[in-house]
Amino acid sequence: MKRYKLVIQYDGTNYHGWQQQPNPDLPTIQGEVEKALALIYKDPVKILAAGRTDSGVHAEGQVIAFDNEKAVPAERIANALNSILPEDIVVISCEEASLDFHPRYDAIRKWYRYTIYYDQLPNVFLRNYSWHISYQLDLAAMAGVGKYLIGTHDFSSFCSTKTGVKTFVRTLEKCTLTIDEKLLCIDLVANGFLYNMVRIIVGTMVEVGRGRFKLDNLPEIIAERDRRKAGPTAPPRGLCLKKIYY
Amino acid sequence: MKRYKLVIQYDGTNYHGWQQQPNPDLPTIQGEVEKALALIYKDPVKILAAGRTDSGVHAEGQVIAFDNEKAVPAERIANALNSILPEDIVVISCEEASLDFHPRYDAIRKWYRYTIYYDQLPNVFLRNYSWHISYQLDLAAMAGVGKYLIGTHDFSSFCSTKTGVKTFVRTLEKCTLTIDEKLLCIDLVANGFLYNMVRIIVGTMVEVGRGRFKLDNLPEIIAERDRRKAGPTAPPRGLCLKKIYY
Repeated sequence: MKRYKLVIQYDGTNYHGWQQQPNPDLPTIQGEVEKALALIYKDPVKILAAGRTDSGVHAEGQVIAFDNEKAVPAERIANALNSILPEDIVVISCEEASLDFHPRYDAIRKWYRYTIYYDQLPNVFLRNYSWHISYQLDLAAMAGVGKYLIGTHDFSSFCSTKTGVKTFVRTLEKCTLTIDEKLLCIDLVANGFLYNMVRIIVGTMVEVGRGRFKLDNLPEIIAERDRRKAGPTAPPRGLCLKKIYY
Repeated sequence: MKRYKLVIQYDGTNYHGWQQQPNPDLPTIQGEVEKALALIYKDPVKILAAGRTDSGVHAEGQVIAFDNEKAVPAERIANALNSILPEDIVVISCEEASLDFHPRYDAIRKWYRYTIYYDQLPNVFLRNYSWHISYQLDLAAMAGVGKYLIGTHDFSSFCSTKTGVKTFVRTLEKCTLTIDEKLLCIDLVANGFLYNMVRIIVGTMVEVGRGRFKLDNLPEIIAERDRRKAGPTAPPRGLCLKKIYY
């Protein structure tokens, strides 16, 4: 038995998220990759992923793993998959991993980037990869949000679904806003993220940017541990899983 | 009667080119814009365009014009159109023009950009906006092509269809290759372009880059005035109409 670790990139626009759905007619990233692996190995293959991205969310560095007994060289797996997979899913690398490697449990850090396109007019080329905001934002205030969120906190206020996790405590290491002309990039690095945590942090930053929240409100928003205190969940299309660290 | 000049941006991926097709089930940019105008004016509206882009080709600065008797303020037309048009077509600006303005005949210069994604692996986010090339290219040789093409020449060798034009002489003012990490941008500016001229020039540059043509061959390729002498037509997805100058 061998275990393989793969890094994959995908455009999530045309998929119903990462995870295979009960209805097999709804395309998912997991479904496409498992279908391609089944063609290569002529047997069903189950894959594990570092994170389950939602419908419309993208990845530059999703990490997955699968096991197989057939000795296919790792470098041939990537090429074989890329020749089968649709254009919007690409295997970046494939290597053999130790048999106890787990893409989710072994991850020590994740990096997500959220992109806002900030202009009066939408941009047709970035429409699937950014949240278009045409109203006025106080960018300096938005950039100030990181100072309050960075550190080890109970992030319950920034979590949509409370099931399936033992603790809401996470350590946010980085939360920055970078301005590149009309693109606002929000980079978040943490040892783990709760469900919708990135998108709720971004939604909260935008509320700060448009003056509905003040920076002074942030300690209270965190302390309340109540989802209703934070901002709305930003749309999925602006979100990209950049990298998983091991 | 008033004439309006509009600048529009579109992602051509999902369209059968600019021009309305005999089969109305095939979506075109012209068809979408005319449909939206007909909704606003409650009457059919015909539009003129600076250039007819092919299926899969994009535009950041296509210029169109139409006439109407109803006095709708120009600034309201852009907003009204954007609220009706699909997400992949956006009106950037709308202004009143003189009644004899013609987007094609009055254009004195056009700028097209062709983008190549040059890497071993494809990029899922740029797949619709670039030509992915994974084989080795001699970029210095490619950059040298411009020196031969710039100027006033009969560009018959770089023209797919010989019908409908009186002369094949065009003046190419700019032909540059810019390298931005894995992106190769080829910018072409001319007083006019023949059918497929940009894509054939790019296809020829790539033949130079992979060593099938030498730079020394270029004077002969031009002089022969024979489409078969030049390189292949580069795929449409890498092409973008950047700007029309008046």
